[in-house]
Amino acid sequence: MPSSLKLIKKHKNFGGYTCYYQHDSFFTNTKMNFSCFIPEEGKVESCLLYLSGLTCTEENFITKAGVQQHLAKSKTMVIAPDTSPRGTNLPGEHDSYDFGSGAGFYLNATTPGYKDHYQMYDYVTKEIIEIAQKEFHIKKFSIMGHSMGGHGALIMGLREKNLFKSVSAFAPISNPTQSASAQKAFSSYLGNDRGSWKIYDATELLLAGYQRDDTILISQGTEDEFLEKSLMPNNIENAAKKMKQQLELQYCKGYDHSYFFVSTFIKEHVLFHLKALV
Amino acid sequence: MPSSLKLIKKHKNFGGYTCYYQHDSFFTNTKMNFSCFIPEEGKVESCLLYLSGLTCTEENFITKAGVQQHLAKSKTMVIAPDTSPRGTNLPGEHDSYDFGSGAGFYLNATTPGYKDHYQMYDYVTKEIIEIAQKEFHIKKFSIMGHSMGGHGALIMGLREKNLFKSVSAFAPISNPTQSASAQKAFSSYLGNDRGSWKIYDATELLLAGYQRDDTILISQGTEDEFLEKSLMPNNIENAAKKMKQQLELQYCKGYDHSYFFVSTFIKEHVLFHLKALV
Repeated sequence: MPSSLKLIKKHKNFGGYTCYYQHDSFFTNTKMNFSCFIPEEGKVESCLLYLSGLTCTEENFITKAGVQQHLAKSKTMVIAPDTSPRGTNLPGEHDSYDFGSGAGFYLNATTPGYKDHYQMYDYVTKEIIEIAQKEFHIKKFSIMGHSMGGHGALIMGLREKNLFKSVSAFAPISNPTQSASAQKAFSSYLGNDRGSWKIYDATELLLAGYQRDDTILISQGTEDEFLEKSLMPNNIENAAKKMKQQLELQYCKGYDHSYFFVSTFIKEHVLFHLKALV
Repeated sequence: MPSSLKLIKKHKNFGGYTCYYQHDSFFTNTKMNFSCFIPEEGKVESCLLYLSGLTCTEENFITKAGVQQHLAKSKTMVIAPDTSPRGTNLPGEHDSYDFGSGAGFYLNATTPGYKDHYQMYDYVTKEIIEIAQKEFHIKKFSIMGHSMGGHGALIMGLREKNLFKSVSAFAPISNPTQSASAQKAFSSYLGNDRGSWKIYDATELLLAGYQRDDTILISQGTEDEFLEKSLMPNNIENAAKKMKQQLELQYCKGYDHSYFFVSTFIKEHVLFHLKALV
């Protein structure tokens, strides 16, 4: 993949730089955007990928979570990709918040039209990784995410266990094949053969024997408005117990699904990953 | 002023609560919005007002600056009001980013139409203060702001020196009567008698003898795109020297005008104010 990486914006921030990049993506056949924070240019060795939730772009996390201060003195950068391709006009793509633009669900679509662009699993695990290696000389990766992006982090962490040194999630959609909203997206991206959905469902992956040697960290607010209908942490907790996957599921009393929750616990997640990235 | 304060949203955040409120404003004759962070409900004693810059609402600062973590263990809340009245349709009100909606300039307008709503100086120094006293039992106040809001903090801090225990600003418009963009707004809000503009210009207030006994803190990025045309820190620095006002003007090398600048130095500003609010 030849590089077309273009710096769009660069802001000094906590001694390092918060940057926005754009590039031509091989996997999505569109331009793609990501944001990043580079603690001290030229000295980074590892990268923490952050996958955002429904409706987000590359901007939400990098402006709202306050992650930069916790990486400022480290050798770890963070990259936060956009949540879907942009600029295409596929049927139904822009009609709802939980499918299409802003809602790529970090899978490789197989349905007509969508299969040509919505290849977010490969985009993150191959193309973003390659950009980080080539352009920023990154040697080690960890992954985290929020909500739909927590789902992305969990499935990528389970399926690419050698690539990612550690995995964590904030309020992840941890069993999407059981969530009505995600089911709608999965059927539109993957068709109605539910067997093909399982490789994009963290709970199903665990039950199928996918496993990590390290502990997966999940933080979940108890007042999260999506807790029971979309997130279902009990399901992944039960699957982890059954399959002996170490999982630290932290319930955070009184917290909801917003970035006010993420910003409160981001420091703990960053420290968790920095330990693994040493 | 009878209270019509209505809680719009409440998010647990760093052990406290980030909240959005709306109320009927006596001074603007509109509904007004503000955001706030309350470290531990019922225990706050003092309040740090934050005034935002052009185009901002009550949302920018509270979602982007990362202030909450620095107040979480204190007895000081923060209130961030919207930057103008909303919902009116005055002539020219919505035509440019630097006048009208999102650009109240923290003054009391005297021109037809605008004088009925754009009373942001009184709104902040009287109505917000009264709400904080009555509804949150606040006894002490300090004030800070960014850009246009830095201007607001400086003029209010100089004119209401007994009300505010300390004053700081990020990249303030410190001599608006000399800035082309602010001149346009001032003439539309106040008419063409430039004599009437001076009570809304921090540099002019200093030169007219307004003074504080404590040190005013200003942080200014050296790569700020508005530095020379709109902010002119040299002017306030010279006025402060001439009039023997203690001013700590910190140049922050490489920083621009964005919230990435504010978030980097917010901790220092908060600690500065917490000392004064003890």
